[in-house]
Amino acid sequence: MRSVFVIGSSMSRFGKIAESGRESLTKVCFDAIRDAGVEASEIDSTFYSNAFGLTERQAHVGPLINSALGIPGVPSVSVESACSSSSAALHEAFVHVASGLDDICLVAGSEKLSHLGTLSATTYFAMGSDFPFEAMSGVTFPGLYANIAVAHMKRYGTTQEMLASVAIKNHANAMHNPLAHFRKRISISDYMESPVIAYPFHLYDCCPFSDGSAAVVIASEEKARALKQELVEIAASERGGSVATLQDRADITSIDGAVAAARRAFSRSHIDPGDIDVAEVHDCFTIAEIIATEDIGLFPKGEGGRAAIEGETAIGGRVAVNPSGGLKAKGHPVSATGVAQIHELYEQLTGTAGGRQVGNAEIGIAHNVGATGGSCSVHILRRVR
Amino acid sequence: MRSVFVIGSSMSRFGKIAESGRESLTKVCFDAIRDAGVEASEIDSTFYSNAFGLTERQAHVGPLINSALGIPGVPSVSVESACSSSSAALHEAFVHVASGLDDICLVAGSEKLSHLGTLSATTYFAMGSDFPFEAMSGVTFPGLYANIAVAHMKRYGTTQEMLASVAIKNHANAMHNPLAHFRKRISISDYMESPVIAYPFHLYDCCPFSDGSAAVVIASEEKARALKQELVEIAASERGGSVATLQDRADITSIDGAVAAARRAFSRSHIDPGDIDVAEVHDCFTIAEIIATEDIGLFPKGEGGRAAIEGETAIGGRVAVNPSGGLKAKGHPVSATGVAQIHELYEQLTGTAGGRQVGNAEIGIAHNVGATGGSCSVHILRRVR
Repeated sequence: MRSVFVIGSSMSRFGKIAESGRESLTKVCFDAIRDAGVEASEIDSTFYSNAFGLTERQAHVGPLINSALGIPGVPSVSVESACSSSSAALHEAFVHVASGLDDICLVAGSEKLSHLGTLSATTYFAMGSDFPFEAMSGVTFPGLYANIAVAHMKRYGTTQEMLASVAIKNHANAMHNPLAHFRKRISISDYMESPVIAYPFHLYDCCPFSDGSAAVVIASEEKARALKQELVEIAASERGGSVATLQDRADITSIDGAVAAARRAFSRSHIDPGDIDVAEVHDCFTIAEIIATEDIGLFPKGEGGRAAIEGETAIGGRVAVNPSGGLKAKGHPVSATGVAQIHELYEQLTGTAGGRQVGNAEIGIAHNVGATGGSCSVHILRRVR
Repeated sequence: MRSVFVIGSSMSRFGKIAESGRESLTKVCFDAIRDAGVEASEIDSTFYSNAFGLTERQAHVGPLINSALGIPGVPSVSVESACSSSSAALHEAFVHVASGLDDICLVAGSEKLSHLGTLSATTYFAMGSDFPFEAMSGVTFPGLYANIAVAHMKRYGTTQEMLASVAIKNHANAMHNPLAHFRKRISISDYMESPVIAYPFHLYDCCPFSDGSAAVVIASEEKARALKQELVEIAASERGGSVATLQDRADITSIDGAVAAARRAFSRSHIDPGDIDVAEVHDCFTIAEIIATEDIGLFPKGEGGRAAIEGETAIGGRVAVNPSGGLKAKGHPVSATGVAQIHELYEQLTGTAGGRQVGNAEIGIAHNVGATGGSCSVHILRRVR
């Protein structure tokens, strides 16, 4: 298998956006291609994610975007896995380049749900769970993750203040991200005074429904070296799976698929969790970030909450977690999130992250979860000198 | 790249089926795994297609099916490309095995739309087109393909009787397929007396909306040789793309992406179109089969209609086209169709196709189109002795 490199990326503003997903997706693709310094005609295959495209009457987004890009003859495919859709798409593209089949691939994801309103969007999100067993019992994602949080608090002594510290940090980070959904610093009292959504979650424990798009261009080493001075390698691309429903799991304080994918990623890349400078992890709820930092090995099991509240995960801390603001504050347009994490890492590793730049960032990890962890992707990116 | 083999397959009955897509999909996966003679735990990755899963409130079908199969830790992904969804999924799985990353992969597709009723199903199907430009102008797929048919008739002299001959042949073939949606022989007068849907199409020019599922297990040569006496190689797996909308194409009597994918497939496999014994092609409308047989090179351009009416595409003719009954009579559960074509070829090449067996079938081709050809997959299967 060949080495694979990120050579360009782009993301739109995340938030409540008037333009269609299709328009937004087309724009980020043009921008990522320009950032990569290639011609669209050099792309061998395209991989799109648009899991809720049916809500915009789009079931075949690939040919629409490729036609707009002027490359209708290039094969396109939609690759999806709920909230980990575009990282799953990246994995497929990675395999295409690593195998030698393709030299340059475009991977992009987009979601627009704001036109549906919150109730309808909640229902669509719940289709990522086991709907007849979970949602039909009245438990949508805030309730599912609240159960996870209660179990983690009970077993490891994780506190409400630790959950709050994740939200406060990610909102602070997003102040430096001009594309973030929320650019609003919050205090512990803002958090405590916000409504309870599902105990122990307050409003500020929950990521928003966002519209938005992100794109990345990846290439073989030969192509990357010909195009770029600064090289960022995808040192590992791994995916994992877990039992679909919480009620069937032996332990809900950890996500098996994430643990397995991270172990394989570290093993194959010969990188150690202690080497990670910057992490973009799937903080759809505050507890999810705490568990993520444990599952991928940044902190021992049960120590994620303590690490967050003691500032170890802040920019300038031991390992910067979600410098972009994460799903919590940057926003979570379902099928854009996985690639948006890669976009953030690419900016961090090329030193272009502006006010949220992590000093001397050499190695980054992206952790993207589908639903409560039925699917998961882990990517490790490394700056190569 | 390594050689890749089909080692097992299964399909459900196609038609109006009461059970959920999820139940049906789970069953075909169990059956294909049993047919392959492997344990589910030997599967490295799973690839599912369920393009209209949202209509059943399923947006993350992989973990549901893998959990039911007892392999929750195996990575799953949804791969879709409108009506060519599961052949696109097969292509991704093919790359995983060919690259050496995986040894055994499961690929399965399912669709259930009958619960929606015909009008709603038509609307969902239309989401595979460029909805704001095509469907919103009142042109859904029968109208789009009717335009293609008129152009083909005008340029090449293709006649209504030639279209009818495709429908009559495929209905006759489906009489020998116990899993087909329609098992009803039709005559030229049945055809002519059936209602006009969109000129020149009568009812019998159009494939039905079907529910159903299909699954296939593929493996590396080493695994295949250890498991099977009769070997069927995927000699080529290629995909192509075309301009998304008819109004932007230079020529609508051919599908560029299909032509390109077929050329690459023949070139890479060192097989000639004249070597093909059996073809499963995408006959969503009768004209589509005629164009398919030309695009993949079974007949010269403009000769597909003549070949059909003269019996060259019948079982026992020069090259058997759609011995399964095709989308026309076997049925078309969108995301199952691509893998169902592979199931038919696998049965044909292993001599287990019963009353519709093509004599001495050694080499088969599958041609699966998304929408009016925005995406297309071509697979060539070869019996290896």
